[in-house]
Amino acid sequence: MTAILLLHGPNLNLLGTREPGVYGSTTLEDINTRVIAAGAERGVEVRCFQSNHEGALVDALHEARLWAAGVVFNPGAYTHTSIALRDAIAGTGLKVVEVHLSNVHAREEFRHKSMLAPVCVGQISGFGWRSYLLGLEAILGYLNGE
Amino acid sequence: MTAILLLHGPNLNLLGTREPGVYGSTTLEDINTRVIAAGAERGVEVRCFQSNHEGALVDALHEARLWAAGVVFNPGAYTHTSIALRDAIAGTGLKVVEVHLSNVHAREEFRHKSMLAPVCVGQISGFGWRSYLLGLEAILGYLNGE
Amino acid sequence: MTAILLLHGPNLNLLGTREPGVYGSTTLEDINTRVIAAGAERGVEVRCFQSNHEGALVDALHEARLWAAGVVFNPGAYTHTSIALRDAIAGTGLKVVEVHLSNVHAREEFRHKSMLAPVCVGQISGFGWRSYLLGLEAILGYLNGE
Amino acid sequence: MTAILLLHGPNLNLLGTREPGVYGSTTLEDINTRVIAAGAERGVEVRCFQSNHEGALVDALHEARLWAAGVVFNPGAYTHTSIALRDAIAGTGLKVVEVHLSNVHAREEFRHKSMLAPVCVGQISGFGWRSYLLGLEAILGYLNGE
Amino acid sequence: MTAILLLHGPNLNLLGTREPGVYGSTTLEDINTRVIAAGAERGVEVRCFQSNHEGALVDALHEARLWAAGVVFNPGAYTHTSIALRDAIAGTGLKVVEVHLSNVHAREEFRHKSMLAPVCVGQISGFGWRSYLLGLEAILGYLNGE
Amino acid sequence: MTAILLLHGPNLNLLGTREPGVYGSTTLEDINTRVIAAGAERGVEVRCFQSNHEGALVDALHEARLWAAGVVFNPGAYTHTSIALRDAIAGTGLKVVEVHLSNVHAREEFRHKSMLAPVCVGQISGFGWRSYLLGLEAILGYLNGE
Amino acid sequence: MTAILLLHGPNLNLLGTREPGVYGSTTLEDINTRVIAAGAERGVEVRCFQSNHEGALVDALHEARLWAAGVVFNPGAYTHTSIALRDAIAGTGLKVVEVHLSNVHAREEFRHKSMLAPVCVGQISGFGWRSYLLGLEAILGYLNGE
Amino acid sequence: MTAILLLHGPNLNLLGTREPGVYGSTTLEDINTRVIAAGAERGVEVRCFQSNHEGALVDALHEARLWAAGVVFNPGAYTHTSIALRDAIAGTGLKVVEVHLSNVHAREEFRHKSMLAPVCVGQISGFGWRSYLLGLEAILGYLNGE
Amino acid sequence: MTAILLLHGPNLNLLGTREPGVYGSTTLEDINTRVIAAGAERGVEVRCFQSNHEGALVDALHEARLWAAGVVFNPGAYTHTSIALRDAIAGTGLKVVEVHLSNVHAREEFRHKSMLAPVCVGQISGFGWRSYLLGLEAILGYLNGE
Amino acid sequence: MTAILLLHGPNLNLLGTREPGVYGSTTLEDINTRVIAAGAERGVEVRCFQSNHEGALVDALHEARLWAAGVVFNPGAYTHTSIALRDAIAGTGLKVVEVHLSNVHAREEFRHKSMLAPVCVGQISGFGWRSYLLGLEAILGYLNGE
Amino acid sequence: MTAILLLHGPNLNLLGTREPGVYGSTTLEDINTRVIAAGAERGVEVRCFQSNHEGALVDALHEARLWAAGVVFNPGAYTHTSIALRDAIAGTGLKVVEVHLSNVHAREEFRHKSMLAPVCVGQISGFGWRSYLLGLEAILGYLNGE
Amino acid sequence: MTAILLLHGPNLNLLGTREPGVYGSTTLEDINTRVIAAGAERGVEVRCFQSNHEGALVDALHEARLWAAGVVFNPGAYTHTSIALRDAIAGTGLKVVEVHLSNVHAREEFRHKSMLAPVCVGQISGFGWRSYLLGLEAILGYLNGE
Repeated sequence: MTAILLLHGPNLNLLGTREPGVYGSTTLEDINTRVIAAGAERGVEVRCFQSNHEGALVDALHEARLWAAGVVFNPGAYTHTSIALRDAIAGTGLKVVEVHLSNVHAREEFRHKSMLAPVCVGQISGFGWRSYLLGLEAILGYLNGE
Repeated sequence: MTAILLLHGPNLNLLGTREPGVYGSTTLEDINTRVIAAGAERGVEVRCFQSNHEGALVDALHEARLWAAGVVFNPGAYTHTSIALRDAIAGTGLKVVEVHLSNVHAREEFRHKSMLAPVCVGQISGFGWRSYLLGLEAILGYLNGE
Repeated sequence: MTAILLLHGPNLNLLGTREPGVYGSTTLEDINTRVIAAGAERGVEVRCFQSNHEGALVDALHEARLWAAGVVFNPGAYTHTSIALRDAIAGTGLKVVEVHLSNVHAREEFRHKSMLAPVCVGQISGFGWRSYLLGLEAILGYLNGE
Repeated sequence: MTAILLLHGPNLNLLGTREPGVYGSTTLEDINTRVIAAGAERGVEVRCFQSNHEGALVDALHEARLWAAGVVFNPGAYTHTSIALRDAIAGTGLKVVEVHLSNVHAREEFRHKSMLAPVCVGQISGFGWRSYLLGLEAILGYLNGE
Repeated sequence: MTAILLLHGPNLNLLGTREPGVYGSTTLEDINTRVIAAGAERGVEVRCFQSNHEGALVDALHEARLWAAGVVFNPGAYTHTSIALRDAIAGTGLKVVEVHLSNVHAREEFRHKSMLAPVCVGQISGFGWRSYLLGLEAILGYLNGE
Repeated sequence: MTAILLLHGPNLNLLGTREPGVYGSTTLEDINTRVIAAGAERGVEVRCFQSNHEGALVDALHEARLWAAGVVFNPGAYTHTSIALRDAIAGTGLKVVEVHLSNVHAREEFRHKSMLAPVCVGQISGFGWRSYLLGLEAILGYLNGE
Repeated sequence: MTAILLLHGPNLNLLGTREPGVYGSTTLEDINTRVIAAGAERGVEVRCFQSNHEGALVDALHEARLWAAGVVFNPGAYTHTSIALRDAIAGTGLKVVEVHLSNVHAREEFRHKSMLAPVCVGQISGFGWRSYLLGLEAILGYLNGE
Repeated sequence: MTAILLLHGPNLNLLGTREPGVYGSTTLEDINTRVIAAGAERGVEVRCFQSNHEGALVDALHEARLWAAGVVFNPGAYTHTSIALRDAIAGTGLKVVEVHLSNVHAREEFRHKSMLAPVCVGQISGFGWRSYLLGLEAILGYLNGE
Repeated sequence: MTAILLLHGPNLNLLGTREPGVYGSTTLEDINTRVIAAGAERGVEVRCFQSNHEGALVDALHEARLWAAGVVFNPGAYTHTSIALRDAIAGTGLKVVEVHLSNVHAREEFRHKSMLAPVCVGQISGFGWRSYLLGLEAILGYLNGE
Repeated sequence: MTAILLLHGPNLNLLGTREPGVYGSTTLEDINTRVIAAGAERGVEVRCFQSNHEGALVDALHEARLWAAGVVFNPGAYTHTSIALRDAIAGTGLKVVEVHLSNVHAREEFRHKSMLAPVCVGQISGFGWRSYLLGLEAILGYLNGE
Repeated sequence: MTAILLLHGPNLNLLGTREPGVYGSTTLEDINTRVIAAGAERGVEVRCFQSNHEGALVDALHEARLWAAGVVFNPGAYTHTSIALRDAIAGTGLKVVEVHLSNVHAREEFRHKSMLAPVCVGQISGFGWRSYLLGLEAILGYLNGE
Repeated sequence: MTAILLLHGPNLNLLGTREPGVYGSTTLEDINTRVIAAGAERGVEVRCFQSNHEGALVDALHEARLWAAGVVFNPGAYTHTSIALRDAIAGTGLKVVEVHLSNVHAREEFRHKSMLAPVCVGQISGFGWRSYLLGLEAILGYLNGE
């Protein structure tokens, strides 16, 4: 059975409590539930992990190379600065789709650049919690070579 | 019946003939057919237009504000330089999802910046012809407030 | 009889419908009417043209060198990027006054620089539809060497 | 009776003696006389002040907030560097039209940026002494909401 | 009873042992003791935490939003690069005063910019261990709306 | 008796009248009164001076080196551009604390850099009129070597 | 019979009338005639096209991929900004020699960079109408693998 | 007996599995074994530590100041961004040799700058696993003042 | 009798008291005396003026155009930022030699650029009070066309 | 008899041995022979010189001003950095055509800028050894004013 | 017998006399002797050459390709600017280890970038004369594929 | 007897023949004669050397440290790029005055920065051949500690 890692970066555990005007009231739990359900419909297992620690996210990617077919990853603030996560993606060879809740390209200048995108399959941003569902669909389409 | 404009920028008419290593052998016609079909499944009309002329794309957006509920737009090379298209999107108030076949963030530096993204709902890049299907899904989800 | 070209760049045909908070409800037709009237009062013929196509604006300038004594030009989005329009102004030797409805210097950074201003007589920005009337007055004063 | 401040920045007292190839032979006195006359025709009082001191120009703006309906201001060299004048305009809430004799956008790079324009109503440059008359017209049109 | 989090970033546990020429011989323990005492005098509880881990500091801010009225935060090296901490402050809505022992503006160029300051109430730097006492006073004054 | 100079830069005389949303309704007179009172409680004389003239502020610093033990200085707009004030501080050897009413680091980019901070003891910003009281406390603590 | 496209960008139709001090009095017609003649001498057909429209130049390149062995292209002002033309050259796989009448490297800074050169065979600039003859010779030499 | 810390940054635990084309098939375990052996030959104890957590690397340096004579450190991705590690090296006063497996100066631009090098004794890069042996030799030579 | 203006910018009145390690113990009075004497030897009158006010220096240049054959000018801190002084020199047509006590090119980056040098005859820096004597000699040589 | 200097910069003596994938197997001797022959056909003497020394190339240009009507110059690596060669060309008044074997505009960023081009007649790049023949033709055309 | 070129760039002949605080009192002769001895121990011949002439260093590399198995090269000041040396290394295909006496990354900004490193095997800096011994070891290890 | 090196960089041998509009008709020989004479008047021997070779200028400085009390140096084009000459001045400890015939600060941007000035005593530019005489006077004044 295909397994996908749903990985969340820093501050995403605040979802639903955090700047609702920007991110809405959906919690991280809600998102995980929806993506797990959408995976189940397609016969895919989705495992979820969140951390505020850059190192823990690196660790999670390392560990995932042993079992995951692909990753849907919202790297949050680390998107823009983390060479360690970039190297982890390149080093593990994992297929990763980068997703963002908000339209990062419409926010502060420093959020326009992604250090990770060049080593990802693609990027999806701006669709709120639906970014994750689109990310799941994208990674499955990519893996199936549909 | 909801109608969506599927808008293609410069050189996309070459698809299938153009740099297949980067873009695959699917033609623009193929993509249009698939997106129209996907729209039909959801009870949505999809109208397609391609031009190599920046001005013609501006005209198309102007005209679409009279009938389209949303736009799936691959602005191609104009993504990175066209303030006229940015103003057209802002000025018409159309809801636009920006899509790219290739992962623009992994290509030349000058393709990393989008002049249009700040006035779009969101951006999807890197999934080949599936970027368009994801774009359709994204705009419909957005419009339905799902 | 002196003749003046009143030239409008991309998206200005949306005037009155476009971002009224920024540009007001006056339409392009209204502006043309007022400038033609103001010209008539001074015994000057004003001919109007608008296009969303950079090339069509270049063509219009080329053609105008055969009949126009001067140009009042709102280049819109092409202000900031068009070397072709700059070369057209320099190449035709036309006397051009650059006008803007909004105060471009108070908007996004990329609107602060004009590629055309260095080859124009002068620039007027920020006075809404009155920018055009001031532009007409400015070009006539310049041509009359008043 | 509406009153307008006509404010001149550094080196403008040299007008008529200074770089005539660039600025013509009109003196500052000549300009003041013409603008006062133009104001009188419209039932508007125009008071004039010139200083080479940034602080004195700040003082003049502060004092003008007690009596002036608007300001026509040629900030000269301070245009490009003075945050103090910018704060004075923003702080007094005065309506200011920035004017320049020469086309600053066609001169040295460091003259292309205005620190003041973002807090002014608009900017007029390149029409010699007529820039002031256009400036008067612009501020009156703005104030009358014509 | 009002409670304040006194949060210390990386390497501050070295205080007293670290570059005494720059930071003096006061230890972190000494500083905590003084700030706790100063808080007690004002009827305020001060809880202290230090970590060299960016993620642990993010966690600490998240947890503090459940009990702390405000934060006095010396982010150390993370001041200049951490978008995660910036997002944590904005996301929790905590009122934070940024403090620094040394005058960061007089040190290397890369220490001049703070990623956090734009989402903090204010910044205090350069007064050694007294920066913390001033920080406590500042946050209490801010909270009391004095 | 220790004497401190409380020095105010351009536009601060507008306080209370100027952008109250940003700066509050406290006047400069109010601030001076509070700081003088706070000084008196500590047995310190506080003398106040404000000018919109960069040169007058330089003069004030020169004169203060003959009587002042320290300076609390809000350089306003000159913070970001004045090398003359920087040289005056370095040249007189005065101990200066730089203070700002607003959080300059959260405003326009050009307000993030201080030309003066590298030659000051420290910087305090963002606490409204309380920034001055904190500044007084900071300079006294510094001078007493507490 | 080998066929070559001689492609001219914006404002080149003005040749002979435009800035003769810079470009001489030769018209575009003259140049076309000479290059056609030079081609004929070598048994090569030369077809000529000029447009001020970026999109029309893209279209011309697309169409040429069906019949042209190579292209001699003076992209004029679009040299420095057009990613669309760059993509058209790369996408069609056409062999293109970029030519310029003037020495672009000796003119304004913004004319020093060519967006097209990286996807062309080579570049020739500065030899007036002879640049075109040299360009023809260069493309033929390249195609013949001489 | 002299003791040396052999410190490895993020993703180095992947060695042997990670981008073998770039880094070879030697594992981190292999490298540790070789450096420990080389140390033993010289009568030096080598202790090894790896972490993907920036904070854990800071902690390791702090702890090493109690027992290590020097450090051979491959900071991996943190080389280019970590001010915290820079401060840890400067704050502990440890003698550190920075080593890299690959020639970082021949890779992406963002890998050319080291935040740590200015506070290290020296830097060695490009010699694969032998970079570590050279690093050991370098630190011992430095410590022995040979 | 030829007359020369010896003009001193901000903080130069502190000479002898200010950073003696950098500028020596010679006072401004000493320098004036020496330059006046050196002028007298050559039959030249030297008049001296110092101000900390940018505007006053502008005024002094304006006034000097009525009597001075040339100017030896140490603009101090205004060297690097004052467009007003640059315009004053260009506008009055005065022949000016820029002098500096210290070697400005060996100090902070922001002191490397002179806004005034492009409109001066030449620049002399780094020779302490002797810079002024060399400046006098330079302007006289220039004026005499020796 | 007209004489032309064929000047080759650093590393061009390696031609035929050096990076054949980029430069082909033609030697410098081969190129010289072909250009001399082509010159002879046109009644022009071609003298050849190569050096790896910037100073020797400067010397060669100095000496050539006594006998050469023009220069075909491949400055190699010095193209991008040598102000001395630029000054030599400007100072001798020699007419120089800059040529490059490879398409420098398609290589590393630092090869895109030519310090010499602004003082040359024109530039030809990208046509291998044929660049030299085109360069000869270009300089002769230029000199003959054809 | 394997032969290695030990190549020294500009000013290294001053070693022992030059800035001893930075470089120590070892002379170039001393270093050559040590490296030759170390080579002899390993059965490797080391030939030494120093020049202050960029061209002579290029020549030396060209000549070395006929006999040297590798190069240990301290390019001194040319490290940061010489494209000619970069091309010489790439063009000859020589295996080069770049070495520096001082830690160039801890000195002026302009010494942080190496133009040569991208075409070298690796770089060693900061270990005084021992950098050369480490460089010898590194190149031999590399050549032996140890 | 004090001896001074008068050192001339690239292209200065062209003086009198080179761009007379900029540099006048005085030859290098003339300048040397005048400086030698001026030296003789003061009992100082002046030895002159010119080279177009950066390396030869480095050599000359090295050799001069054995006999010269100071250097008057016009580095010409190498002023702006030569780190080797900078290191030669710092390494020999020679006292050097940098001189320029033209006002380098009024020419192209790339001539505004001197790589050498930070290690020289001072800089004199803009006075034609008199720059050299002023330079001699300056170095002698400096050496005599007058």
